[in-house]
Amino acid sequence: MNNIPFKGVIAYPVTPFDQNENIDLPLFKKQVERLVTSGSHAIAPLGSTGVMPYLNDTEKEAITEATMQQVAGRVPTLVGVSNLTTERTIYHAQFAEKAGATAVMIIPMSYWKLSDQEIIKHYDSVASKISIPIMVYNNPATSGVDMSSNLLKRLLEIPNVTMVKESSGDVQRMHYLRRELGEDVAFYNGSNPLALAAFSAGANGWCTAAPNLIPELNIALYNAIQENDLQKARELFYQQMDLLKFIVAKGLPRSIKAGLDLLGIGGGHFKSPLNALNENEVEELKNILKTLNYNIEE
Amino acid sequence: MNNIPFKGVIAYPVTPFDQNENIDLPLFKKQVERLVTSGSHAIAPLGSTGVMPYLNDTEKEAITEATMQQVAGRVPTLVGVSNLTTERTIYHAQFAEKAGATAVMIIPMSYWKLSDQEIIKHYDSVASKISIPIMVYNNPATSGVDMSSNLLKRLLEIPNVTMVKESSGDVQRMHYLRRELGEDVAFYNGSNPLALAAFSAGANGWCTAAPNLIPELNIALYNAIQENDLQKARELFYQQMDLLKFIVAKGLPRSIKAGLDLLGIGGGHFKSPLNALNENEVEELKNILKTLNYNIEE
Amino acid sequence: MNNIPFKGVIAYPVTPFDQNENIDLPLFKKQVERLVTSGSHAIAPLGSTGVMPYLNDTEKEAITEATMQQVAGRVPTLVGVSNLTTERTIYHAQFAEKAGATAVMIIPMSYWKLSDQEIIKHYDSVASKISIPIMVYNNPATSGVDMSSNLLKRLLEIPNVTMVKESSGDVQRMHYLRRELGEDVAFYNGSNPLALAAFSAGANGWCTAAPNLIPELNIALYNAIQENDLQKARELFYQQMDLLKFIVAKGLPRSIKAGLDLLGIGGGHFKSPLNALNENEVEELKNILKTLNYNIEE
Amino acid sequence: MNNIPFKGVIAYPVTPFDQNENIDLPLFKKQVERLVTSGSHAIAPLGSTGVMPYLNDTEKEAITEATMQQVAGRVPTLVGVSNLTTERTIYHAQFAEKAGATAVMIIPMSYWKLSDQEIIKHYDSVASKISIPIMVYNNPATSGVDMSSNLLKRLLEIPNVTMVKESSGDVQRMHYLRRELGEDVAFYNGSNPLALAAFSAGANGWCTAAPNLIPELNIALYNAIQENDLQKARELFYQQMDLLKFIVAKGLPRSIKAGLDLLGIGGGHFKSPLNALNENEVEELKNILKTLNYNIEE
Repeated sequence: MNNIPFKGVIAYPVTPFDQNENIDLPLFKKQVERLVTSGSHAIAPLGSTGVMPYLNDTEKEAITEATMQQVAGRVPTLVGVSNLTTERTIYHAQFAEKAGATAVMIIPMSYWKLSDQEIIKHYDSVASKISIPIMVYNNPATSGVDMSSNLLKRLLEIPNVTMVKESSGDVQRMHYLRRELGEDVAFYNGSNPLALAAFSAGANGWCTAAPNLIPELNIALYNAIQENDLQKARELFYQQMDLLKFIVAKGLPRSIKAGLDLLGIGGGHFKSPLNALNENEVEELKNILKTLNYNIEE
Repeated sequence: MNNIPFKGVIAYPVTPFDQNENIDLPLFKKQVERLVTSGSHAIAPLGSTGVMPYLNDTEKEAITEATMQQVAGRVPTLVGVSNLTTERTIYHAQFAEKAGATAVMIIPMSYWKLSDQEIIKHYDSVASKISIPIMVYNNPATSGVDMSSNLLKRLLEIPNVTMVKESSGDVQRMHYLRRELGEDVAFYNGSNPLALAAFSAGANGWCTAAPNLIPELNIALYNAIQENDLQKARELFYQQMDLLKFIVAKGLPRSIKAGLDLLGIGGGHFKSPLNALNENEVEELKNILKTLNYNIEE
Repeated sequence: MNNIPFKGVIAYPVTPFDQNENIDLPLFKKQVERLVTSGSHAIAPLGSTGVMPYLNDTEKEAITEATMQQVAGRVPTLVGVSNLTTERTIYHAQFAEKAGATAVMIIPMSYWKLSDQEIIKHYDSVASKISIPIMVYNNPATSGVDMSSNLLKRLLEIPNVTMVKESSGDVQRMHYLRRELGEDVAFYNGSNPLALAAFSAGANGWCTAAPNLIPELNIALYNAIQENDLQKARELFYQQMDLLKFIVAKGLPRSIKAGLDLLGIGGGHFKSPLNALNENEVEELKNILKTLNYNIEE
Repeated sequence: MNNIPFKGVIAYPVTPFDQNENIDLPLFKKQVERLVTSGSHAIAPLGSTGVMPYLNDTEKEAITEATMQQVAGRVPTLVGVSNLTTERTIYHAQFAEKAGATAVMIIPMSYWKLSDQEIIKHYDSVASKISIPIMVYNNPATSGVDMSSNLLKRLLEIPNVTMVKESSGDVQRMHYLRRELGEDVAFYNGSNPLALAAFSAGANGWCTAAPNLIPELNIALYNAIQENDLQKARELFYQQMDLLKFIVAKGLPRSIKAGLDLLGIGGGHFKSPLNALNENEVEELKNILKTLNYNIEE
């Protein structure tokens, strides 16, 4: 289907800064290049991993454009454009479309919990201003809103709302989604430790920052599922489970940047108040990567 | 291994009463017979489904003995013997062993949350008084105690504590258990809606009351997993998912008894204050069973 | 009102055992005597503090009778008679009435979450078999059932159901109860750390094990409230707050028994698997009591 | 103390928009004037009630300046300047100081949960750039971070961090704060339904949007506490409790604006996706206000 452009491993890059807290675009492009060449099936800048909420408009636009330049059509792109206000969400969605994004991802960000009517109007307003597909993102932990399957059904009636990303961390919700929304609706797993369970449940893809560190294992897991080989998938999952749990427990931007430093690629600096992992945490990550046979620069 | 006697579908019978709230042993035996002949791999009386905590000692003993008589060694048996006090737990564990049970299941029941030391001493005391294997049961929702993997590791050092049943409803705990305890430890899933996810994660078996109603589907799911056919397992899981969710949402004893009535086998009465499903709930269950092509007596 | 026999500080004794795990009745009577003479306004045996769920029928009956003998009508008594089955609840309620209890306390114990209809029938059945007042006890943490104010309203329509004890630990529920049930309904606080907030909200009394250790402070707090002296009540509350938090955090039976040992009265032994506080915890309790100027036997 | 400039009722205005979603400054000033003349002890623009996170920099600055002009030194002011990034927080704090704010309020906003070290550095960085006092705001529900009393202690060592606002909705945390931080630390209640419990616990003030609707009742409650008249305070609290619960349950901006419309003052429009209460909710609010004898324009 034209408007469901994603399957497999959708990779989320970080946003690297220099020491003055300005975006380091050359390093960003290097990281994106590595995600593409190591086999990820799509690139998703300005996600949680990309600390999108901490960026100003200029920074968001620079990251969007740099992604398009570097990916250059080799794989589809999914740009995060969520914002507290409808007006700003439209602005960034239109920017992404004009820049060449394949699709946009929108979570109903909220400081004040939104009603279903407010959420519907929000997506309706944005969808009517762009023509590329929208992935609805449900993540109660960060948005403060847990969208019901009835609400998701309603949102999927909007013509270019065609995909759902579920990150509540409960595999039963994925079962329920697929049951309620039907097999035709594309749903994506956004919870790394549920990678095996979500693919078993029939997820179309896995939205993850892990390919910044262990792309081979992530893609091999997807391939085993495609080959209907559960035993192999299980084995691959248990191999990478410690890494998946670590990056979620310590925070994706911090742990991915630390891992990129350890792998010699470079993770870049942070924007305050966010800061790097402490030494013990870096040591723990180093041990996990070594166990997986990655070469660590000492 | 001799002391890990279970795999596959471990079926939990209800405890039927007559109108005077006395146990209906003939009906119980009929229900057990059906569980055995429809292919369940083990029978587990006096579980939550069997409303064990509501029974007095005489009733527990009658159910234990009736199970042994009816099963007659055709499949292994797992008898629930949990009790708030160590003294009564020992009593019932010894009774079960003497009656011929293959193994006993023990959850650390608590009114006052137990410390790790208290739990270890409890299992130690019981284990030293019997020689059949013990399955440790973790279910924070009913016991009030969530046993850590460290504690479970310690309990598994007791020679005849050989199995773990996990019912917290979070598949990530199963991943963690297998990771921490090693592949040799037998772990069992006690959460019906997680049947697919738990088998995908490598569970040895599924402790469930569902075979009272849909034994063919339950066993087919296990067989698909054994055949490493994830697509078939997924399809079978989605077929039975509504039934699995219903019996958990409405309470196992109530929903299984209602289903046994609908199927013409008879579920029996309840012990107060527990009571039957209401009419709307029965109607809902009837529709689920009809969708699965079961013949319902109208 | 004749059927609201309690106000002020309702004291909960522990149940002491000897080294063979038999009830130590002489020690129990000594503890009860101290509760009465130190000014508690009522005595409530067989509560959570009295580890009622761990006792067999004989033990419950012995404790009930010993309480009546020792109190000898000097203050009213409130006997816990809750049980999973309706039949056993009736049995113990009738025993308490015959023994001379002023009232009984009943929590809707549940292994399987009860429906509102099941709870109503349970209270109706018990209430119709006794003529003394019943205090309904809401404590979702131990019973697994959180009774709504609508359900409580319905229960209070049963003639001898006249009091509500609220232990959810949320003062807003007490506000709501009083608002919904009206000022005439007697409500009691069962959460020690909420003593000040609950009295401020208008609670008729405080159900507590603390008078085993610090009766003077507990009663002084109630008196300050009676005198409408908020500043004094606040000061008294902050004085005893550490003790109140400690006994809740460590478990009432364990911490009260340890305190009784420290005070030279004697707390008695436990029934397995329950066990004593560890040394560090006892040291912490000793320091709290010393700060409150209690003499500790070293 | 010079650097603890607040006590009593600290009133939070809304931010009214016109139909084109531009700020309606004349209406804002009218609302602020009413808060001052009806007796509030301080004015706090750009709080949650003022939908600060939805405003761009220009809008925030306009609201800050309009507040200073309208209040004109009659009562102290507390301006919200929280932001996800340290750089923007400093910017807005400096703007507020220059505009004449008495103090600023800062919550550690987070998309990615901050470590204690990150939070300390954030407050340190901001505090070193301004000379007016800072109120630390703890509200895990909106910030995603629950600051421990140890962390709060550390933050209070920063010279111009002098006040704590607690909005977790648990009165036990206020007890604990006062106990751990000492009586000299000024703590403020930010949870409307806890107004009585928090004042009973010794809170210095009440941060609330309620004075937009019922200023007389809010101030009378504070006065009763000052007079040590618990019975009167309790009575006043129960009078206003339904209103306090309503505005929290329905969201402060929505319910306060609806109330201002009902009272004939005018609440203004919203910024999308936020929207007005529905008709049933407005009707409910109307009934609550009528019960409190407010004149409602029909």
